Amino acid sequence: MFLTRTEYDRGVNTFSPEGRLFQVEYAIEAIKLGSTAIGLKTKEGVVLAVEKRITSPLLEPSSVEKIMEIDEHLGCAMSGLIADARTLVEHARVETQNHRFSYGEPMTVESTTQALCDLALRFGEGDEESMSRPFGVSLLIAGHDENGPSLYYTDPSGTFWQCNAKAIGSGSEGADSSLQEQYNKDITLQEAETIALSILRQVMEEKVTPNNVDIAKVAPNYHLYTPAEVEAVIARL
Amino acid sequence: MFLTRTEYDRGVNTFSPEGRLFQVEYAIEAIKLGSTAIGLKTKEGVVLAVEKRITSPLLEPSSVEKIMEIDEHLGCAMSGLIADARTLVEHARVETQNHRFSYGEPMTVESTTQALCDLALRFGEGDEESMSRPFGVSLLIAGHDENGPSLYYTDPSGTFWQCNAKAIGSGSEGADSSLQEQYNKDITLQEAETIALSILRQVMEEKVTPNNVDIAKVAPNYHLYTPAEVEAVIARL
Amino acid sequence: MFLTRTEYDRGVNTFSPEGRLFQVEYAIEAIKLGSTAIGLKTKEGVVLAVEKRITSPLLEPSSVEKIMEIDEHLGCAMSGLIADARTLVEHARVETQNHRFSYGEPMTVESTTQALCDLALRFGEGDEESMSRPFGVSLLIAGHDENGPSLYYTDPSGTFWQCNAKAIGSGSEGADSSLQEQYNKDITLQEAETIALSILRQVMEEKVTPNNVDIAKVAPNYHLYTPAEVEAVIARL
Amino acid sequence: MFLTRTEYDRGVNTFSPEGRLFQVEYAIEAIKLGSTAIGLKTKEGVVLAVEKRITSPLLEPSSVEKIMEIDEHLGCAMSGLIADARTLVEHARVETQNHRFSYGEPMTVESTTQALCDLALRFGEGDEESMSRPFGVSLLIAGHDENGPSLYYTDPSGTFWQCNAKAIGSGSEGADSSLQEQYNKDITLQEAETIALSILRQVMEEKVTPNNVDIAKVAPNYHLYTPAEVEAVIARL
Amino acid sequence: MFLTRTEYDRGVNTFSPEGRLFQVEYAIEAIKLGSTAIGLKTKEGVVLAVEKRITSPLLEPSSVEKIMEIDEHLGCAMSGLIADARTLVEHARVETQNHRFSYGEPMTVESTTQALCDLALRFGEGDEESMSRPFGVSLLIAGHDENGPSLYYTDPSGTFWQCNAKAIGSGSEGADSSLQEQYNKDITLQEAETIALSILRQVMEEKVTPNNVDIAKVAPNYHLYTPAEVEAVIARL
Amino acid sequence: MFLTRTEYDRGVNTFSPEGRLFQVEYAIEAIKLGSTAIGLKTKEGVVLAVEKRITSPLLEPSSVEKIMEIDEHLGCAMSGLIADARTLVEHARVETQNHRFSYGEPMTVESTTQALCDLALRFGEGDEESMSRPFGVSLLIAGHDENGPSLYYTDPSGTFWQCNAKAIGSGSEGADSSLQEQYNKDITLQEAETIALSILRQVMEEKVTPNNVDIAKVAPNYHLYTPAEVEAVIARL
Amino acid sequence: MFLTRTEYDRGVNTFSPEGRLFQVEYAIEAIKLGSTAIGLKTKEGVVLAVEKRITSPLLEPSSVEKIMEIDEHLGCAMSGLIADARTLVEHARVETQNHRFSYGEPMTVESTTQALCDLALRFGEGDEESMSRPFGVSLLIAGHDENGPSLYYTDPSGTFWQCNAKAIGSGSEGADSSLQEQYNKDITLQEAETIALSILRQVMEEKVTPNNVDIAKVAPNYHLYTPAEVEAVIARL
Repeated sequence: MFLTRTEYDRGVNTFSPEGRLFQVEYAIEAIKLGSTAIGLKTKEGVVLAVEKRITSPLLEPSSVEKIMEIDEHLGCAMSGLIADARTLVEHARVETQNHRFSYGEPMTVESTTQALCDLALRFGEGDEESMSRPFGVSLLIAGHDENGPSLYYTDPSGTFWQCNAKAIGSGSEGADSSLQEQYNKDITLQEAETIALSILRQVMEEKVTPNNVDIAKVAPNYHLYTPAEVEAVIARL
Repeated sequence: MFLTRTEYDRGVNTFSPEGRLFQVEYAIEAIKLGSTAIGLKTKEGVVLAVEKRITSPLLEPSSVEKIMEIDEHLGCAMSGLIADARTLVEHARVETQNHRFSYGEPMTVESTTQALCDLALRFGEGDEESMSRPFGVSLLIAGHDENGPSLYYTDPSGTFWQCNAKAIGSGSEGADSSLQEQYNKDITLQEAETIALSILRQVMEEKVTPNNVDIAKVAPNYHLYTPAEVEAVIARL
Repeated sequence: MFLTRTEYDRGVNTFSPEGRLFQVEYAIEAIKLGSTAIGLKTKEGVVLAVEKRITSPLLEPSSVEKIMEIDEHLGCAMSGLIADARTLVEHARVETQNHRFSYGEPMTVESTTQALCDLALRFGEGDEESMSRPFGVSLLIAGHDENGPSLYYTDPSGTFWQCNAKAIGSGSEGADSSLQEQYNKDITLQEAETIALSILRQVMEEKVTPNNVDIAKVAPNYHLYTPAEVEAVIARL
Repeated sequence: MFLTRTEYDRGVNTFSPEGRLFQVEYAIEAIKLGSTAIGLKTKEGVVLAVEKRITSPLLEPSSVEKIMEIDEHLGCAMSGLIADARTLVEHARVETQNHRFSYGEPMTVESTTQALCDLALRFGEGDEESMSRPFGVSLLIAGHDENGPSLYYTDPSGTFWQCNAKAIGSGSEGADSSLQEQYNKDITLQEAETIALSILRQVMEEKVTPNNVDIAKVAPNYHLYTPAEVEAVIARL
Repeated sequence: MFLTRTEYDRGVNTFSPEGRLFQVEYAIEAIKLGSTAIGLKTKEGVVLAVEKRITSPLLEPSSVEKIMEIDEHLGCAMSGLIADARTLVEHARVETQNHRFSYGEPMTVESTTQALCDLALRFGEGDEESMSRPFGVSLLIAGHDENGPSLYYTDPSGTFWQCNAKAIGSGSEGADSSLQEQYNKDITLQEAETIALSILRQVMEEKVTPNNVDIAKVAPNYHLYTPAEVEAVIARL
Repeated sequence: MFLTRTEYDRGVNTFSPEGRLFQVEYAIEAIKLGSTAIGLKTKEGVVLAVEKRITSPLLEPSSVEKIMEIDEHLGCAMSGLIADARTLVEHARVETQNHRFSYGEPMTVESTTQALCDLALRFGEGDEESMSRPFGVSLLIAGHDENGPSLYYTDPSGTFWQCNAKAIGSGSEGADSSLQEQYNKDITLQEAETIALSILRQVMEEKVTPNNVDIAKVAPNYHLYTPAEVEAVIARL
Repeated sequence: MFLTRTEYDRGVNTFSPEGRLFQVEYAIEAIKLGSTAIGLKTKEGVVLAVEKRITSPLLEPSSVEKIMEIDEHLGCAMSGLIADARTLVEHARVETQNHRFSYGEPMTVESTTQALCDLALRFGEGDEESMSRPFGVSLLIAGHDENGPSLYYTDPSGTFWQCNAKAIGSGSEGADSSLQEQYNKDITLQEAETIALSILRQVMEEKVTPNNVDIAKVAPNYHLYTPAEVEAVIARL
């Protein structure tokens, strides 16, 4: 069984007899090895929270960036290969800047997500911006546009879904169950912060501190919490 | 038997000794894993209905788009890899817009379908728009032009057929039999809506709700049903 | 025996030790799986007749096109991969239109056939119009030019022959024997219609109807028979 | 032995440990499967004669062209893959036309042969005119220039030799022995016609008729014999 | 286990079934074979120290450069393939020079690091500056900009982290533990020099001399210690 | 042993673990299958002599060219693949013509040899003139320039040596021994002719005649001996 | 062990699981098969000496060039594939000429060495000057610039070191030991000549003569010793 599989999964973009694209599935595996990230949409805005794996006390925690700003109304949390994520975010930043310049208005959250997925889908095609393999990263894209706040989830296949709440990364399975129990559409942004951190705390195997988690919100602008603001949320748990 | 087959199916576009193109056949397998979609042509217009697989209650149902508008007189339902379908639909939108601009009239349904199939056939050729593998998606293209309403069905080989009624996706076999029993050319659009949803209900393993199905018509313009309109059709079952 | 063969047939355009090009031979196999088509040359013009495989009663028979017009004095019947055939026909249409524009006269049947075979031969070369594999299709090209009516037969190797009568596709072996018995150069066009349909009837396993066969003639212009005209030929059997 | 050979012959242009180029050798095998062609040089001019394999009585014998004109002072007979030969001949026609245009005089027979061999040698190089595999064809090039009549023989390796008489194709071995017995430099053109046809008759397994052989001469201009002229030669046997 | 792994690690940029990129992991192995390098950040500036492996007494120690200047406010220590490192440093030098020219100010340490990682990530993409394999080198990048002194660590995957102190190369494991024990943010630059050399002395298997170690600081400008200055630090151990 | 070797020799330009380039070594084998060629330098000029394998009495001996003129002061004898040699000679002719045009003087023998070897070394690089495999040919290049007469020997690796006398091809081993015995720097050109032919006679298995050997000299201009001149040398044996 | 290694060493530029680049290591093996070369730096200048393998008494010893001039202040001795070395030297000559032209001063020894190593590192990248495999050659580069005399050593990996004395090629191991015993920084140029030749004599298995060794110095200009000058050094042994 395993031997025949290997016949198909080396061509980066080839179907197996069952109609599967193994390289995409393996890239999805890369995300299951990644740190956990959580997003929740509220009527006030979207909250993103991520686990930061600080492997050595000599590392500068602020340099482990797993939440990044795309535009002033757009941010994203990531899980998987960080270098891949940076390429995607850089691409999204250029797209949103070009949009502002060409149309004089911010790009919508869905258009930004679609632009990211177009790039992700094009892997193995050999053109200038695309990669020779799938991007090994999932994103939670939080934004605020004329339709209000929204949260999107993308995977390495270039597919995206709009969500109310979603977890990605190694702890996503347990975190998604907790989200289904605790989330409803009427929670406040502050409640969302608390839910996100309390679920992260379950998933992580160490004490939650401003050093090993990051929180950001888009409400309606992107804001990455300072250590003091993170400390305040931890205190509420 | 299986071992010798693997010798041929890795070249994306190579004949086997029996004259078969395995990558195309495997892409067709990808569609058998997809959600079910149904199309019916009536004298008033064409009805499309799809099953939406909402894997988590936290997903926004409206973001799972399996019926999309191509032009105001053209829509399509899809089954298979959604990201591939989006690329095809985007291509079709550009083609139809260019046609309107160049000729001052809408593109016919057949020309649009032909343009999509030309792109699908060119996989593995390395030019700019084509993919390095077959598109893993089938489309039901509904339209209305000078010849009245029409319904086309495309598969990953770049072949297309005009149909009166057709089902694609994992439940297509059972759905096609039901269509042959229930369809005739003189049904009204309303009857077509009812037939489509009642067949989808058989195929899906859960209760039909406005959250897990989508309906659209081209009669003569494309219209995606609102949840209330879907609810009204469900009520008629 | 079979194993050593596989060593050679994966390079799309590589000789085997016996001097054979397997990919071309396999493409020829694809045609043996195709529907049967028949062509007959008479002094009045050329008749083409094809079997149409209508796999479902919900398919629109007229959308299964296996006879196509190339120019007003040129048509062709095809067997094999229909999507490949469409690419070839589209190429031939452009060539004949360009010829009319450049020289103010129709392209001869032989030049058109040669142009199609040049494209077919170039597979695997990587230039713009050619395919990365052989075209999996045979054509019967019927035309009328300054030399009167003529019928050409092409295969996936890019070779062509001029014929008086020829059958291609899954039933070609039996049909060719019948043609040798029944054909002579002095038959009328009407007799050619009758011979073509009576041979198709032997080959097909179902009743011949205007839904499952198509007939066309070039005499001297291309004309695809209406269902009524087909019915009239059937009535003569 | 056979297995190790397969290690080398798939790269289109790679030496084996014994210093052999297998793809070229296999292409030479393709010619051993081809129909027989014979050329003889006399002081009056060169005679070419070929066997035409008419596989079906419904084929038009004149469309099976195995002797072709290159320029008015140049013709060639071919054995092997006819579609490949046509590409070579088309190339030679362009070269000789360009030569006439640029220099105001016909191209010599040797220069034309060299130009054909340059193209044949370049296979696998990826430039515009060359093939991705060796040309599977041998040519007998007959011509007449300032040095009088001459006959050249080319093989798939891009090598050429000047000959007084030569046979190629499946019957070449026997035909070459017969030529050595019967040929001398002082035969007349008419004797050369008779020798060529009598040798072809030995090689072919059927009766020689104007339908299954072609004869041409360059003396000093290219002329393809009419059926009546062929019949006259047959009558002399 | 080992055999199946080999199926994946030959494509330079392909995921394994577990979601791993083996070529990147193997490049990281190349660094574990490299000489040890240590960096420490203090409030006064950053200290870099490296082991130099002088394999022969006939080698000129000063030609074994494992600490290099990038710009006057930027230097780096390296471990792994020195030729690869030189390519990266050359790239960084061009980037920082261009930045000064375009913006009239020095490039920040983070932007320089990001530019190096972008190049490292692009391996296997075929564009002009990138390599066909991962760069087999890790860098410790020391710099001083508007945010004061900073120290970055990059690996072959194109990922980077900001650190207070970090060791790379064959002795990195032991050296990192020692750094965690001995480092605190308030050490002076002179203490950092002493810590760096004393840790290198543990790692190296020979006596520390100005011939087999190099020290540099960025405080705020890059300065490579003369043998006398190194001797002075050694004297303090 | 043999099996592991095959792992390395398929990449056209790849080192084996022992540091060998097998494709080049195999190309050298191709020369060992070639006809024998001999060169001798005298103070009066250089003599080249080759064996011509006339496989059929119907071949025109003069068309088997194994000694060719490069420029009026330069000629070469070849062994191996004749079509490859012609490409090299054609390249050398263009180079020497360009040199005359640009500098108004003949190209030196060494520069010409270097230019040929540069082309030979570049195989597998994909640029316009180079081959995708090594050239399977060795050359003996005879010339006369400001340094007097000289003789160079090139092999498929792109290496060249200056020699006083040298044999290449299938009989080179025996011929080289004979040359070492019989050659000294003070022989006359006439003695060199006699030595060359007498050694060829030992190597060839048939009687030496003007039909099966060619002789040329560069003294100081290139001259290919007429059959009568060859006959005169034979008479002296 | 051996079998698994073969999995990695065919990709020209791919890491093995242990972080090794086998093609580079195999190219280094090619040098171990090469002739021995020795370089020594003195305060007066640098001496290079090489063994010349004259395989036949008919070879012109002066055409076996293993020491070559790069610029008037730069020379190099080589071991490994001579054709590769010539490409590198030609590249260096162009670089140093361009430098003189652009800056009006000679290129430094280190910059020249760096330029050679940049080219060597770029193998497998597909750009115009680089090779598709590593250069199978090591160089000893002797030069004299504003910093006085210097000696560099390069290997196929594109790495370089500055040395006081160094041997390369098949006898390098023994020669390096002898150099360490006999070399000190204060030897005169004449002593360096004697040491170099006496070590070569140990390594070579035949008598040292002006025919089978070459000596050159850069002091401060490049000078290749005449046979008489070499004889004089031999006489001093």
